[in-house]
Amino acid sequence: MALFYQPEIPAGVHYLDQEESRHCVKVLRHGTGDIIKILDGKGNIYKAQITTASPKECVFEIIDTTIQDKPPFHIHIAIAPTKNLDRMEWFIEKAVEIGIQEVSFMLCKNSERRILKTERLEKKAVSAMKQSQGSYMPLINELVSYPDFISKTREEQKYIAYVDFSNPAKLYQTASPEGTYCILIGPEGDFTKDELELAIQNGFSKVSLGNSRLRTETAGLAACHILNLINLQ
Amino acid sequence: MALFYQPEIPAGVHYLDQEESRHCVKVLRHGTGDIIKILDGKGNIYKAQITTASPKECVFEIIDTTIQDKPPFHIHIAIAPTKNLDRMEWFIEKAVEIGIQEVSFMLCKNSERRILKTERLEKKAVSAMKQSQGSYMPLINELVSYPDFISKTREEQKYIAYVDFSNPAKLYQTASPEGTYCILIGPEGDFTKDELELAIQNGFSKVSLGNSRLRTETAGLAACHILNLINLQ
Repeated sequence: MALFYQPEIPAGVHYLDQEESRHCVKVLRHGTGDIIKILDGKGNIYKAQITTASPKECVFEIIDTTIQDKPPFHIHIAIAPTKNLDRMEWFIEKAVEIGIQEVSFMLCKNSERRILKTERLEKKAVSAMKQSQGSYMPLINELVSYPDFISKTREEQKYIAYVDFSNPAKLYQTASPEGTYCILIGPEGDFTKDELELAIQNGFSKVSLGNSRLRTETAGLAACHILNLINLQ
Repeated sequence: MALFYQPEIPAGVHYLDQEESRHCVKVLRHGTGDIIKILDGKGNIYKAQITTASPKECVFEIIDTTIQDKPPFHIHIAIAPTKNLDRMEWFIEKAVEIGIQEVSFMLCKNSERRILKTERLEKKAVSAMKQSQGSYMPLINELVSYPDFISKTREEQKYIAYVDFSNPAKLYQTASPEGTYCILIGPEGDFTKDELELAIQNGFSKVSLGNSRLRTETAGLAACHILNLINLQ
């Protein structure tokens, strides 16, 4: 059954946003009376019937609702966006497939990319959610300065991915299940000593993600995958 | 120090292949007397001095050799190549970053891609090995038919990533450390029941990679990452 994304479904008349309406009616040629599946990205999966197949505003009626439970953990990856935006889009696609609840972008001292538009990343996340038949959209936050981000984190288990000679603990062996996690992933040029210091002052522990040296986007995905595995029942 | 790849370093006069010579002399402007680092992809890391900076055949002398130990396990991912080749290139790049010893490509009944050239994948693997400062090149095998591949596997721990209602064990909880592993990853249309049956007859066990539904290339990388984590000391 064709799958659509409609984050806001207010009471009264329900309709798909313009882009999804166009996709539903123009591209997939759905007509009045057809049954479609709709995700709101908040755990609700709706079975719906099209009542007005308008390519600008496709109206539907909800026939049936199923709710997918929220995972008992919260994975928040905070990453310094890579120079090459494809790598961030790739990170978002794969992290959503594997399972992620929140993504933040940090402007670090060694960041090569200092501006980031999140619209394309949102789109990637939506298509990955549909593709992997998930029902929760991660929260994707705008780029903020590193100190701003650090001072506002609220998670219980806070880690900074940083490898140096003081041989840090491994995330895989350190993190405990069913927690709320925030993992900091540095830019291509890595975090500066000052940035590391600031994280530690704010309750972050230094961790390694494994034995190999990973690119920024690979490190972000590895951290996300490790935390999903730790929570695997 | 600039890093180059030279798989064959015979006795006598040593030189870089044409492509690496061009990169070394033309692109990076290295000259006679310069010190470079060379990987043979077999665990040897050479410190070398350029004796003749020819852009076609850069001659070098080995000053020092360090050997990186082979990992005490062997991860072999056998995957049905995706229709979109970028996804296979991405898989190779990321698997090499995370750590993989062998990759095979299988022609399955539901494979959309029925021809595969491995040259580009080899190139991706080389640059990923350099980038992640690894010193072993994975063995990358040509595309073969699924039954051919299945009948020739020699690994101790053999798994097929397949999710159905008989609720398979999870690779993360099933595989044991320091083994030789072969994991089969199916095409976009998944394995057929017959293919599953054939694998089981040949000693493969059904496993799931986690709770989410993953694309082919994501499943391949997840399997590779899980096995690396299981072997993490």
